Amino acid sequence: MTSRLESELAFLSIVEASRLLRRREISSAELVSAALSRIARLNPSLNAFITVADDAARREAQRADREIRRGWRGPLHGIPISLKDNIETRGIRTTAGSKILGSFIPAKNSVIAEQLARAGAILVGKTNLHEFAYGVTTENPFFGATHNPWLRDRIPGGSSGGSGAAVAAGLCFASVGTDTGGSIRIPSSLCGIVGLKPTFGLVSLEGVVPLAESLDHAGPMARSVADASIMLEAIAGGYPDLARPPDFRKLRKKRPARFRIGWPKQYFFCRIDDEVFRAVKNAVKTLESLGGRAAEVSLSHLDDSVAPSTNIALAEATQYHESRGYFPKRADEYSPDLRRRLEQGREVRAVDYLRAREQQREVMHDFDAAFERVNVIVAPTTPIAAPALGSKEVSIAGEKETVRSALLRLNRPANYTGHPAISLPCGFTRAGLPIGLQIIGPHWGEAGLLEIAFAYEQATNWHKKRPDLE
Amino acid sequence: MTSRLESELAFLSIVEASRLLRRREISSAELVSAALSRIARLNPSLNAFITVADDAARREAQRADREIRRGWRGPLHGIPISLKDNIETRGIRTTAGSKILGSFIPAKNSVIAEQLARAGAILVGKTNLHEFAYGVTTENPFFGATHNPWLRDRIPGGSSGGSGAAVAAGLCFASVGTDTGGSIRIPSSLCGIVGLKPTFGLVSLEGVVPLAESLDHAGPMARSVADASIMLEAIAGGYPDLARPPDFRKLRKKRPARFRIGWPKQYFFCRIDDEVFRAVKNAVKTLESLGGRAAEVSLSHLDDSVAPSTNIALAEATQYHESRGYFPKRADEYSPDLRRRLEQGREVRAVDYLRAREQQREVMHDFDAAFERVNVIVAPTTPIAAPALGSKEVSIAGEKETVRSALLRLNRPANYTGHPAISLPCGFTRAGLPIGLQIIGPHWGEAGLLEIAFAYEQATNWHKKRPDLE
Repeated sequence: MTSRLESELAFLSIVEASRLLRRREISSAELVSAALSRIARLNPSLNAFITVADDAARREAQRADREIRRGWRGPLHGIPISLKDNIETRGIRTTAGSKILGSFIPAKNSVIAEQLARAGAILVGKTNLHEFAYGVTTENPFFGATHNPWLRDRIPGGSSGGSGAAVAAGLCFASVGTDTGGSIRIPSSLCGIVGLKPTFGLVSLEGVVPLAESLDHAGPMARSVADASIMLEAIAGGYPDLARPPDFRKLRKKRPARFRIGWPKQYFFCRIDDEVFRAVKNAVKTLESLGGRAAEVSLSHLDDSVAPSTNIALAEATQYHESRGYFPKRADEYSPDLRRRLEQGREVRAVDYLRAREQQREVMHDFDAAFERVNVIVAPTTPIAAPALGSKEVSIAGEKETVRSALLRLNRPANYTGHPAISLPCGFTRAGLPIGLQIIGPHWGEAGLLEIAFAYEQATNWHKKRPDLE
Repeated sequence: MTSRLESELAFLSIVEASRLLRRREISSAELVSAALSRIARLNPSLNAFITVADDAARREAQRADREIRRGWRGPLHGIPISLKDNIETRGIRTTAGSKILGSFIPAKNSVIAEQLARAGAILVGKTNLHEFAYGVTTENPFFGATHNPWLRDRIPGGSSGGSGAAVAAGLCFASVGTDTGGSIRIPSSLCGIVGLKPTFGLVSLEGVVPLAESLDHAGPMARSVADASIMLEAIAGGYPDLARPPDFRKLRKKRPARFRIGWPKQYFFCRIDDEVFRAVKNAVKTLESLGGRAAEVSLSHLDDSVAPSTNIALAEATQYHESRGYFPKRADEYSPDLRRRLEQGREVRAVDYLRAREQQREVMHDFDAAFERVNVIVAPTTPIAAPALGSKEVSIAGEKETVRSALLRLNRPANYTGHPAISLPCGFTRAGLPIGLQIIGPHWGEAGLLEIAFAYEQATNWHKKRPDLE
């Protein structure tokens, strides 16, 4: 296969690839072979994968090709995908980016892995992440740094950075990441792809190594809104009271009717890089041209929410590691960074944890009240584009801030409140780095959120730009 | 009115009284007058009420009599009831048994008070309780001890002890109590009445002064299962996802079909007073004669549950008092006892709180698994009958134990798991004190639970025995 053809195959959308697979104009074996060949060539410099499921993927692809002849299972049948390495996969090592689980081979699939297998998707590998998914900037202490496909000296963002880089670089068609404080949306923003953190509870976390139980979400990362909606359709259904999640595939045929766009008065537009601000502002203009009407919304409790959500994450993370007997018993198997956090987590008082949960409800009510007036709320996903690997601080609008805080602060609210939030490309900086638009919707409002994002994407085509990798 | 007639009126069941009211053979004014006259005569020695709503109750009764002529609202129309004094009532002082809220007059009714007012019930007063409902044995430091109507030197149990004594002594027809670790069921057991702690969330707690948010429940206390079901029908409906609670009145016409009774292998029958054990054992025989088949059930995680639920209660209680600015700011307005607990609550670590919540889920799964095999689980409500006022320790089956622990330990599991649990009289000790049978049902299984309890009550008539008060 020429590198040109390989790249054409690898950057097909799932929508296109599945159409060709169904017509047998291409085979799953070809798609998987293209993905694996790109992984072999590009992963050494990107370090997006911890484990590549080489042989298993080729075998599964051949099986998918035989099956497709007899009966097509749907748009993921035969499509090469990856999973963040904290999502358990039967017989395939699942490290969670940690030393403690460094050689853990699950006996059982997570619900997510099982649902994707049933949909016929082919797992090509497990992607790099921060140690136990706890971080957004520093490199993984055991598996090394992932590099941003757009500029290799930049971070991909975390903690689902491996998934972000792999999808953006055409090493797989889509991935599933996890998001406790922005870990799907941050790498989606920094790598120029589409990432959706669904409503809390929509996607089952059974068999996902937890970070902080009440803030954890899993969701799709893909190269287009339509592809993300296909992935979501396959993995949704965790919430027991929601008899059947909406058919996310239908939305692709819909055009959004008139809708109202909430522009937050507080918080989301403070200390934003100029280029990012302009791109998001332009995105709102585009949305208005598509039938949207912008209105200010007030989220008055939001300013206080960072410290409380830090307390929740610290306490819940530490409780998990304590209850498994990992910490403090095996403290020397953690990086100094995570060890320090878990030590901090032991000091959080229950009353402070509970106060944080109370404040969380206040913020949730702010959002819910806003969603009685608007269909979606827009914001930047991150106030900056991808910063340099190893940088600890950035200057935004003349003020210094840690990279960690800058990347987290616009993402945490939706983890806190459980509202669905999507990040999609809305432009590029002069340095050629992607800029992410964040759209937040009401609980269980994924279908409407995806419709609006899809219309935006069709109108702009930012998602079609590719990094120069060779 | 002669004392004889007054006592006949006061001890009518709600079922009977409402039939007579509807036929206008008695008036609400007469019922309320009988209740108020008994309160005036007996409350000085029982101390069941903190506030008596004398004038308001007489006025409301006259209005009810006029209304009943035009249109009967249902079985509570014109019936004198009371509310535990942590349930907020518009214009009527709601102290929560505390000094801090000692002169608090709510501007708004709690949902419970509002629902009962709409059902036409007449509030005759607010009943005594432990300080902020936090306790089961000691007397209220600001409003004094309530006495048990069966033997005045005995405690009525807490924290809804005022409601227990008031209902048992015929000072009102029914009451609503709250139950965080047994506070409805313990006084029901010790005062020989029927008390139901419903499924967590079935009864709204809006406008109820909280003790520990994740363990708090409100529910009816009455002199018969049928009366309790009428009260439950009026106050149920807090849970937003339960479109309409079942019609609890219908159950009175049903006979239970064949059903399975779970007899717990662990925990519930350890260290039980002989007389109590025999009474509960006999109750199971009676239930078998009514179509029940007894089978052992295993609740293997239950032994570990007392310390964790203490941590949950301490932390949640303290967080409430801190968030209101009561504690530690106004620490000197608490009794030394409660102050010590709130200080302890500040020391609970978030990880221990979270571990307790995890253990809570394990116990819940044990119960849920048992309820796949049986319809109800039986146990004593309390391992002893009412102990002496002021006693700190009891000896049960040769072992010493604090009164507090003895009264709490069989009740806490259902607070922990949120399962509905009813206490009803199943006999008397040689000393003439009532013994409580506890029946626990599956989540949202109130209707079935009440049916079985009703059949038992009809077969035994223990609930018809009255204390000698004059």
